Amino acid sequence: MNKIYDLVIVGGGPAGVTAGIYAARQKLNTLLITKNFGGQVVGKTIAIENYPGFKKISGQKLIQKFERHLKKQEIDIKNDSVAKIKKNNEIFFISTKNKNKFQAKAVILASGADPRPLEIPGEKKFIGRGVSYCAICDGPLFLNKIVAVVGGGNTGFEAAIFLSKFAKKIYILEYGQKIAADETNQEKVKRIEKIEVITSAILKKIKGNQFVNSIICQNQKIKKNINLSVDGIFVEIGFQPATSFVKDFVDFNQKDEIKINPWTCQTKTTGLFAAGDVSEVRNKQIVIAAGEGAKAAISVFNYLQKNNL
Amino acid sequence: MNKIYDLVIVGGGPAGVTAGIYAARQKLNTLLITKNFGGQVVGKTIAIENYPGFKKISGQKLIQKFERHLKKQEIDIKNDSVAKIKKNNEIFFISTKNKNKFQAKAVILASGADPRPLEIPGEKKFIGRGVSYCAICDGPLFLNKIVAVVGGGNTGFEAAIFLSKFAKKIYILEYGQKIAADETNQEKVKRIEKIEVITSAILKKIKGNQFVNSIICQNQKIKKNINLSVDGIFVEIGFQPATSFVKDFVDFNQKDEIKINPWTCQTKTTGLFAAGDVSEVRNKQIVIAAGEGAKAAISVFNYLQKNNL
Repeated sequence: MNKIYDLVIVGGGPAGVTAGIYAARQKLNTLLITKNFGGQVVGKTIAIENYPGFKKISGQKLIQKFERHLKKQEIDIKNDSVAKIKKNNEIFFISTKNKNKFQAKAVILASGADPRPLEIPGEKKFIGRGVSYCAICDGPLFLNKIVAVVGGGNTGFEAAIFLSKFAKKIYILEYGQKIAADETNQEKVKRIEKIEVITSAILKKIKGNQFVNSIICQNQKIKKNINLSVDGIFVEIGFQPATSFVKDFVDFNQKDEIKINPWTCQTKTTGLFAAGDVSEVRNKQIVIAAGEGAKAAISVFNYLQKNNL
Repeated sequence: MNKIYDLVIVGGGPAGVTAGIYAARQKLNTLLITKNFGGQVVGKTIAIENYPGFKKISGQKLIQKFERHLKKQEIDIKNDSVAKIKKNNEIFFISTKNKNKFQAKAVILASGADPRPLEIPGEKKFIGRGVSYCAICDGPLFLNKIVAVVGGGNTGFEAAIFLSKFAKKIYILEYGQKIAADETNQEKVKRIEKIEVITSAILKKIKGNQFVNSIICQNQKIKKNINLSVDGIFVEIGFQPATSFVKDFVDFNQKDEIKINPWTCQTKTTGLFAAGDVSEVRNKQIVIAAGEGAKAAISVFNYLQKNNL
């Protein structure tokens, strides 16, 4: 213990890195704590084509550029995971899994959200080779292909509607007997012939060689396995924001995302900000997360100035 | 008249370009109208070091990359300026200065903001003859001359740093008692001997014959006018959003920025969205404008879907 940072940033994805670049350029004495750089971007081995400035770039390459950009700044970086955050007399106390302890006048939570995985055989193996967690990012790559969307909620249905612009056939696989997606989405899907909804379907296995070529589904009603030829699987069963270490200091929405003031990224706790996918910002996109990170860092600067901290 | 676009985007800066990339990738039939690409980025005086992914890049180069990224998409682009927007039966009618007419189901306003003028005697008269709103455009013309930069914010300081490559003496005139520029910029300016910062200074009048030769400043502390011999004045006191063509359909805040729902970029008019510097988003930054453009495009997609447009 000893040094009190102006700012500790939790997370090294697009929001955290951008917050770091902005904070350092504003001469805030900043520490960024992250297990590794990239957040969800790392998992996108399918090329990224929607981060402005790079027509097409791999997730690895983009995050490498982000990391180098950050490391050009005067900023401390710790490869670690935050275990707990406490607050006492305007100062935040951050302890990590590796038993490090830090103090800061302000904190930006940019710990992201992980897509909820299926946890079935073949899923990990084919990430970036047919398995995707982001229809908006990867959909255009499946032109005239057959895809399956896992999840019969609104996000699943919306992903399927979106994918119908590209794919020639889309299955929506829903675990339960009933569809959770709302009427509007259900009606829309009914009007798109090439989308087929299969309920009571549990995805058991993803198969392929270099790329995905089929999946095995168990039909819960007849307890029989069916084999579907598909080129891609979009997993749309929700996100889990990485927030366990901070739950006493923030409010959550129904999706377990941290509630913020959308103009400043301020949470309900003074001095505590949240940016990017961990927050309730609607769209989970790299450029949006980066923009939110910049917003949060500028807000921290203003907060420290205003309170002479 | 005839074709109805899904979306017309007004503006070709970071917000407009990003909205265009996202809209096109979502297969929205999109037209982007802009006089030229880049918005304020083109006028950026020193290298850009805070757009994540590029450690250091000139405004020209960055916007070139944005433009190329956009043009890789399926999108119509028209080099023109919007004169008027009307709405009738859910359809927007857009007319341009070159007498073109377009129709669209949704519109994103990303027309940015123009430099705010001083509105003092001599300003208009000497535009192009000593008075400039763009240091990068006109700076090189002031080799070994004396110039004044009006405005003590980041843009003013960055303009002064840039101008120090050419001018032999630079005054920075700040209206208030305090400098708003960030620490990094203040330190840089301190290291450049030929830049002199004058606070509590109100520019009253610009004088000259063929060209500017002096200015009259009021020192607010001692309530006394001072006369400074200068060959040029760079006005860096902020921006006024470019919104005249749309004023019946949106609400404005005190800075004349368009009010939006911060989660969706929706204005008060259904189907009409605003993103970037033209909106009330707090911070005028490239990466933030880009993020807002992405948000707006996704919101348009959702809006069209939801209303079966």
